[in-house]
Amino acid sequence: MMQLEETQIASRTLLEGGFLNIYQDTVRLPNGGESSRVVVRHSGATCVLAVTDDDQVVLVRQWRYATGGALLEVPAGKLDVGEDPAQCALRELAEETPYCAEQVEFVMKFYTAPGFCDEVIHLYRAVNIRAESTLSPDQDEFVETVLMGRAEVQAAIKNGEICDGKTLIALQYWLSEKV
Amino acid sequence: MMQLEETQIASRTLLEGGFLNIYQDTVRLPNGGESSRVVVRHSGATCVLAVTDDDQVVLVRQWRYATGGALLEVPAGKLDVGEDPAQCALRELAEETPYCAEQVEFVMKFYTAPGFCDEVIHLYRAVNIRAESTLSPDQDEFVETVLMGRAEVQAAIKNGEICDGKTLIALQYWLSEKV
Repeated sequence: MMQLEETQIASRTLLEGGFLNIYQDTVRLPNGGESSRVVVRHSGATCVLAVTDDDQVVLVRQWRYATGGALLEVPAGKLDVGEDPAQCALRELAEETPYCAEQVEFVMKFYTAPGFCDEVIHLYRAVNIRAESTLSPDQDEFVETVLMGRAEVQAAIKNGEICDGKTLIALQYWLSEKV
Repeated sequence: MMQLEETQIASRTLLEGGFLNIYQDTVRLPNGGESSRVVVRHSGATCVLAVTDDDQVVLVRQWRYATGGALLEVPAGKLDVGEDPAQCALRELAEETPYCAEQVEFVMKFYTAPGFCDEVIHLYRAVNIRAESTLSPDQDEFVETVLMGRAEVQAAIKNGEICDGKTLIALQYWLSEKV
């Protein structure tokens, strides 16, 4: 296997203290040369594929300031410090939607933008979801619940209405399951 | 539909001048309150699903400094200023692997990490790929080509060896195609 490793020579802090810590590092390349790497360090997150008894997936529409628009996504959220990812998935589903789950099963985890960021998202499949009467979103979270069947999801992926990476991974996984 | 929009009140520059520009913005929330948003602005990228005549997908293994390891990914790269994304896909395939394509077809585009970043990746499907004799990677790029069949890809997704978001989207798309 080719020698690929890059090692840190120096690091300059651009931002620290929130859920994102950002550094500009100087690295040693495999050929001995130097290069610069901006690194966004993220605390990690979970997302949850929750499907109703009548085979509709639970999505949320929310404003994404960085993109300048509202996106349709699977329920997701950042891990609290020390939080178990599975617990986070249960919590986010209950916080962002009128649904909650008995338990969740791990599906996979992945890097969202490994070219500059270490964010890992843990994807879970909710088991036995049920509608709750009350919705208690975070105080600074404004989310709208949207239910979609398989055909609608396929159309929304094709026409670009669903264009969030983690959501595409979760929904392609759902569509690949044997019905 | 719920009122979801957040609008900019103020913006502080953390980094400018490279392919990542980073800001810490203050925003007005839909309920009139204020909040803070770190925004990473990215120039955009393409990735390419390239499959050989004997149904093997062309992947690259490369060091991802942010993650502290080497990842297995579809060939991908940042858009040059003003570059057509399709042209970028053809270029990256030829630069990173011993293969090149006659043309590429658009599959979909998506946000990688819309919670804090505006990066859009354009996914293309390469058409009529062929092996070239010479490999000419960028001077600061160290990449290794890996070919995988469908069963190997399914296993590598399941066991976590493939754990890059854009790559999962491209490969799930490939696996969902009728053979």
